[in-house]
Order: sequence, then structure tokens, then C-alpha cells
Amino acid sequence: MSVANAIVRAGKKEDLPAVLELIRELAKYEKMSEQVWNTVEAMEKDGFGSNPIYGLLVAEKESIIVGYSIYYYRYSTWKGKRLFLEDILVTEKERGTGSGKQLFDKTIEIAKQESCTGMMWMVLNWNEPAINFYKKYDARFDEEWVNCHIDF
Amino acid sequence: MSVANAIVRAGKKEDLPAVLELIRELAKYEKMSEQVWNTVEAMEKDGFGSNPIYGLLVAEKESIIVGYSIYYYRYSTWKGKRLFLEDILVTEKERGTGSGKQLFDKTIEIAKQESCTGMMWMVLNWNEPAINFYKKYDARFDEEWVNCHIDF
Repeated sequence: MSVANAIVRAGKKEDLPAVLELIRELAKYEKMSEQVWNTVEAMEKDGFGSNPIYGLLVAEKESIIVGYSIYYYRYSTWKGKRLFLEDILVTEKERGTGSGKQLFDKTIEIAKQESCTGMMWMVLNWNEPAINFYKKYDARFDEEWVNCHIDF
Repeated sequence: MSVANAIVRAGKKEDLPAVLELIRELAKYEKMSEQVWNTVEAMEKDGFGSNPIYGLLVAEKESIIVGYSIYYYRYSTWKGKRLFLEDILVTEKERGTGSGKQLFDKTIEIAKQESCTGMMWMVLNWNEPAINFYKKYDARFDEEWVNCHIDF
């Protein structure tokens, strides 16, 4: 475990291959590897075109991407504009170094700058380290709502 | 119960007062009325400016708005662009007339036109009529993911 602090900064196109590797690492941890269909090309188009549909932060240490967060905005008909944190990950050997907290805090800062009324995200009900981390932020956990999907 | 079909069309600014009434009706049904902070002014700014952050469909019958759906796009790091159906409601006395199905089908049509890889939404775990409706579309229900929030 490295003790130096990571630098948290806006992600660049050039970071995408490393970020997609971490996306795959997260999906593996979540036991859903087979669901990752995304590619570097698609992520470049979706996030770095004239109308980006997501924002990217990376945590970098000694020129290596050790974590990322991906977010975009949602619209609550009750509460207006909300930041939705789609993914946050710090690579396994960097856990416990505070990089996750740096990424999470920076994402909250962006939400506030963008006049969001709050921030939303999801957690797997068995992911205790993550749940305990979010409890420190007084997060509300909403078990009554079930997520539904159809794929085309 | 009226038997004539509703017309489903894109919502206009002028529909917002009626839509906000229905948003409140939905929140009441969901037992969360106190959580509706939104206003017609804010919805006009958020949905009808130069960079709208949500889309609106309305179901209209004899010049009355009897239902609506509100949607926007999400970005799945696994699956790319997805349509997120934030709200769908048909007013109580219009239930069972097929207006909900018309709204839902039109929303799916938009998602496909916009090259989404699928559609996502949420349902309350006790809302059986809605769950049964979604089952007809072979929706997947994902109880493992818990929604988390912080308000600023």
C-alpha cells in the first residue's frame, strides 16, 4: 500500500484504456463481468464529443490510474437536478489509502458546483466495505425501490 | 372509465402545470408527497431551455392531460447509453384504458430511435399492478442493487 496521496483530476481521452480496465475490474468484483459490452472507442465518442453524456474523474499515482469515478446528471421530478455517480472504484492494492475518499469528495464538489440538489448512486446489498464507507457520509439507503431493465 | 384512446405526444411548456399536478398524484400514491420540491418554473427551465435535461411525453384525452412520462439518458459504463424512465403515471380514473401502455411503448420507441442499448426504470417493491405490467415486457428486476442518496 502506497502512502503518498493520489492526484484526483478530470479524465482525458488518453486515460480511457486504463479506465476501461478498471471498469472490468469493478464488474468482476461485482460478479457481473459478462455484462461489460463497452469499448474504448464508444467511451471516447460518448464522453469526449461535442455533447458528452458522462463526466470522468481519475485518481493518479506515479503516472498510473489507480481509480476513477464516472458520473452524469439525473432529473428527479421531485427534487430537480441530481448528480448520479455511476461508478467509483479504487484498484485493489490501493484500497485504504484514501484515494476513494478523494474521488468521492471531488464528485460531491462537482455536484455542488453544478447546482445539484443532491447526489445519488447504487450499491450492491452485500458490498459491506462500500456500505460502511457511504454511512460516514450519512447516506440514505432506499431498499424499497427495485431497479428494472429491458435490453434491446 | 373512458374507452376512447388517448393521444400520446411530446409535452409542451403549457402542459407543465397539469404535469406537476400528476407528479404530486404519483408521489401521494408512492406515500412520499413531502418529497416533492419541484415547481413549474424550475421544470420549464430544466426541460425547455437550450440544453433540456429531461424529455416529456403526455397522454391527452379530450384536451385533458391524463398521463405523462418523463425520461432522460443514463450512461452505463457496462452497456453504454440507456434511456431512464424517471416517471410514468396515468391518472387514477384512466387506469385500465391502455393509456399507460401507449406511454410506455412510445418511450421505448424514443429509446430505440436514440440508439439506446436498453431502458431502465425503478418500481416500488409493493406496487404490484406496476410490477405485473412490467412483467409483460419481460423486464428484469434487480433486487441486489440498493439506491443511495445524499441531499445538499
